[in-house]
Amino acid sequence: MSTRIEIYDTTLRDGAQGRLVKFSAEDQIRVVKALDDFGISFIEGGQPASNPKAAELFARTRDMDLKNAKMAAFGSTRHPKSAVEDDANLKALLDAGTEVVTIFAKSSPTHAKHILRVALEENVILTAESVAYLKSQGKRVILDAEHFFDGFCEDNEYALSVLEAAYRAGAETLVLCDTNGGRLPSEIARITRTVRERLPEAPIGIHTHNDGGCAVANTLAAVEEGAVHVQGTINGYGERTGNANLCTIIPALQLKLALPVVLPTQLEGLTTLSHLVAELANMIPRDSDPYVGRDSFTHKGGMHADAVKKLKTSYEHIPPELVGNRTHISVSEVSGRSSLLQKAADFGIELDRDAPETKAVLERVKELENQGYEFEGADASLELLILRAKGQHRSFFKLHGLRVAVERRNGETDGVSEATVNIELPGGEMMHTVGEGAGPVDALNNALRKALEGTYPELREVHLEDYKVRILDARAATKAKTRVLIESSDGQAEWDTVGVSENIIIASYQALVDSIEYKLHRSRGHEG
Amino acid sequence: MSTRIEIYDTTLRDGAQGRLVKFSAEDQIRVVKALDDFGISFIEGGQPASNPKAAELFARTRDMDLKNAKMAAFGSTRHPKSAVEDDANLKALLDAGTEVVTIFAKSSPTHAKHILRVALEENVILTAESVAYLKSQGKRVILDAEHFFDGFCEDNEYALSVLEAAYRAGAETLVLCDTNGGRLPSEIARITRTVRERLPEAPIGIHTHNDGGCAVANTLAAVEEGAVHVQGTINGYGERTGNANLCTIIPALQLKLALPVVLPTQLEGLTTLSHLVAELANMIPRDSDPYVGRDSFTHKGGMHADAVKKLKTSYEHIPPELVGNRTHISVSEVSGRSSLLQKAADFGIELDRDAPETKAVLERVKELENQGYEFEGADASLELLILRAKGQHRSFFKLHGLRVAVERRNGETDGVSEATVNIELPGGEMMHTVGEGAGPVDALNNALRKALEGTYPELREVHLEDYKVRILDARAATKAKTRVLIESSDGQAEWDTVGVSENIIIASYQALVDSIEYKLHRSRGHEG
Repeated sequence: MSTRIEIYDTTLRDGAQGRLVKFSAEDQIRVVKALDDFGISFIEGGQPASNPKAAELFARTRDMDLKNAKMAAFGSTRHPKSAVEDDANLKALLDAGTEVVTIFAKSSPTHAKHILRVALEENVILTAESVAYLKSQGKRVILDAEHFFDGFCEDNEYALSVLEAAYRAGAETLVLCDTNGGRLPSEIARITRTVRERLPEAPIGIHTHNDGGCAVANTLAAVEEGAVHVQGTINGYGERTGNANLCTIIPALQLKLALPVVLPTQLEGLTTLSHLVAELANMIPRDSDPYVGRDSFTHKGGMHADAVKKLKTSYEHIPPELVGNRTHISVSEVSGRSSLLQKAADFGIELDRDAPETKAVLERVKELENQGYEFEGADASLELLILRAKGQHRSFFKLHGLRVAVERRNGETDGVSEATVNIELPGGEMMHTVGEGAGPVDALNNALRKALEGTYPELREVHLEDYKVRILDARAATKAKTRVLIESSDGQAEWDTVGVSENIIIASYQALVDSIEYKLHRSRGHEG
Repeated sequence: MSTRIEIYDTTLRDGAQGRLVKFSAEDQIRVVKALDDFGISFIEGGQPASNPKAAELFARTRDMDLKNAKMAAFGSTRHPKSAVEDDANLKALLDAGTEVVTIFAKSSPTHAKHILRVALEENVILTAESVAYLKSQGKRVILDAEHFFDGFCEDNEYALSVLEAAYRAGAETLVLCDTNGGRLPSEIARITRTVRERLPEAPIGIHTHNDGGCAVANTLAAVEEGAVHVQGTINGYGERTGNANLCTIIPALQLKLALPVVLPTQLEGLTTLSHLVAELANMIPRDSDPYVGRDSFTHKGGMHADAVKKLKTSYEHIPPELVGNRTHISVSEVSGRSSLLQKAADFGIELDRDAPETKAVLERVKELENQGYEFEGADASLELLILRAKGQHRSFFKLHGLRVAVERRNGETDGVSEATVNIELPGGEMMHTVGEGAGPVDALNNALRKALEGTYPELREVHLEDYKVRILDARAATKAKTRVLIESSDGQAEWDTVGVSENIIIASYQALVDSIEYKLHRSRGHEG
């Protein structure tokens, strides 16, 4: 098993069917570039016949200089009533101008009869004709056999006959699809084995969905039975429960089955690729995702964190660096002293195991966690908290008062937001400033900056990268506590801060202030 | 394969190791009741030796009248330096007062040597002694063989010798653990088969983690090789990438492998169980979860939605009702007319395929989606939108102005929030009201209700169940657009509404107003 496995990405087509997944035209280009850099073999750009955005993408990628990937246009076999030369869908596929074209064909008798509404023999003929025609026009053709596993269970000879016809007509890869996503790995293995016995020369591909929670395992099962082409999406985006997650499959193939897929240096870009695509798709990365999630190498329990230090492989199935991730130790109510010490060491703060200040920090963390704080995602706030407990926290300003107002009058749509702050600088100077903004938090941020940037010009480098709001105890609805997480950057470092209050404005203020104080500690040093 | 598979739930122990998972003492009791009702065989309550919350849970469940489940206390084998009678951990296990006790033992030579730091033979002896002692004290004993698969690959004879010793000493089930979660299904199958050949009489269990994205498939692979006891957590909660997800495994066992686990009527409670545990754990349910996620039977693409209508099994691997879920049709930018018609029919609104109002609604949906609205999670707002397009929307009040202010003065922590609204009722009466609240949105809600409840007393029945904030284009940080989703209930029905603005107060206002208007349409009818 040393063939190179081809990875066929369908994030921009099947992935974009995910309920909340959205890519703008510009995002699509960024995704294509990132997939190409990573070493993906094929990038499916969508159905040009039904989606103008896909047609635009093919037009824009035609002249791109892709190093590793081929773009693939996707569409159906010819319409039962059209001749291939006149078929609108095949024409759109040719017009896309890609070297590779993927067409999907029915391989289940039920679907041929009830969805496509053609006679069974006719379905085989139109599949073969569509493949042959695209080949005759100079295309490389990949065949997606829709509902293949269901079709095989219904009538194995019929399902195989569709594959055979497509292969004889010139399809370079026959992709077995578990379209409704419900098959189990043992079935996928058995059926793939039968297909391989029947068509030993044909390169076989696999395309799975995650409805049974087995999309990754089903893909690996097919590869272990000889499939050489794997279809899936970044982060498993896709309709319903999603498609097979390439971010899980690729490291499994390369690190566990020792099948070459991408270069080791490319594999180190996996975590970044996953997060970039999440961001472009406007999705929040799932922290618990295998390999690339921020929790996938995070150790919380005091016992585990100790064991990980003793023996890395105890609770890490691979070295996280191989996929560009890293070990995190998280501080939380069930974790012990050693996690906190590890965290302090990460920050470069000396904290003695038995010092009273260590106990004080642990107690303060616990108390704040009871109020709804989470320091797992707010390292900078935790660092400030430790500095406070050690008496090394510097006070750069003091708030005397703030006021935020939002007003909307008859006929306006968005309203006006205004914030004022009253701040005392070291030395006693008072700054009373006002800011406007797109919303109340933006106004507050602007007022704070007006008050502070004169004294601390380095704050001009700081911008807020992300602003997240989590409602705690959601059942309390508008009375619920609100946790705000802010990610800040000065172009060199990024840091996360947290604030909690029943009042979203006050929670945002706390996180904003921690962000500013963290920057000032970095630029001007601690006390003592 | 018709043995009943035992389900062993460890949500309250291993699940609670998830980074953001938290259960209060009261929550734990509610979880126990729900698991028992659902038909789970064993409920692991935690480690009484190290966790006072676990000890409290055992005390409280001792007199509960569980119908299906046995509580299990969890702990380690005796300390290498203690005699069993004097061992603090074994004593805590006995003190828990459960009929069932689960102990974990090292089965990997590396872990015995480097983590437990005992000689290999000593590890076998202390395992057997611990099992035998607990048996002698009247307990049923389950053995979790930690790192079993890694241990087997390192030294299969040693790993098997630990199992054998525990079985001879009286353990009723030998649980093979993939503790670092990195094994693939083919390995799990092969190793489980070997264990079964070696210990054909011993009941075998399986405990997996999801680090390789295969926890569910690994569990199923072991069961297909004869394992009869399955450990996992509700929603797959757990450290790092989580444990095996029982909400995926149970329906797979029962519906796909035809192995009896719970009664069909209990299985219909699966979706409710998943959402209840999520809520108690303070986790947001993952929409893309197999079987129980709200997207797992949601159809978006116009083509798929049509096909699902033609043939339910095309894109649904099981009838969703079997697990208490249902088919959803979602309206979105890639969906067609037929999805919208389906949705309108769900609402009981007649919408003609070719009427101009249908086109108008589709265009309006598209326009709002471009602004950041999502109607997938906001059926009530969509229904109001359709009513507006059909001229059937009634105006129950008109906003002339609103003003929201948050103020915090020196020394205060939470600040004061106040909102005023100026509202015109039908007939021209003006209501100018003021509300205070825990935060600005709560204050606004209170002011609105003061203005409206006199005229529309049924609004007193309405309470807000959930309030979600999603930052769109998070990189714009505090300038980003904000989408607010509100879930409301009047004790009989629940409905979801949406608002979008750069200003979180205005977005909240829109969602609040839609919630109120939806209620009034329900109680007072549409126009025409």
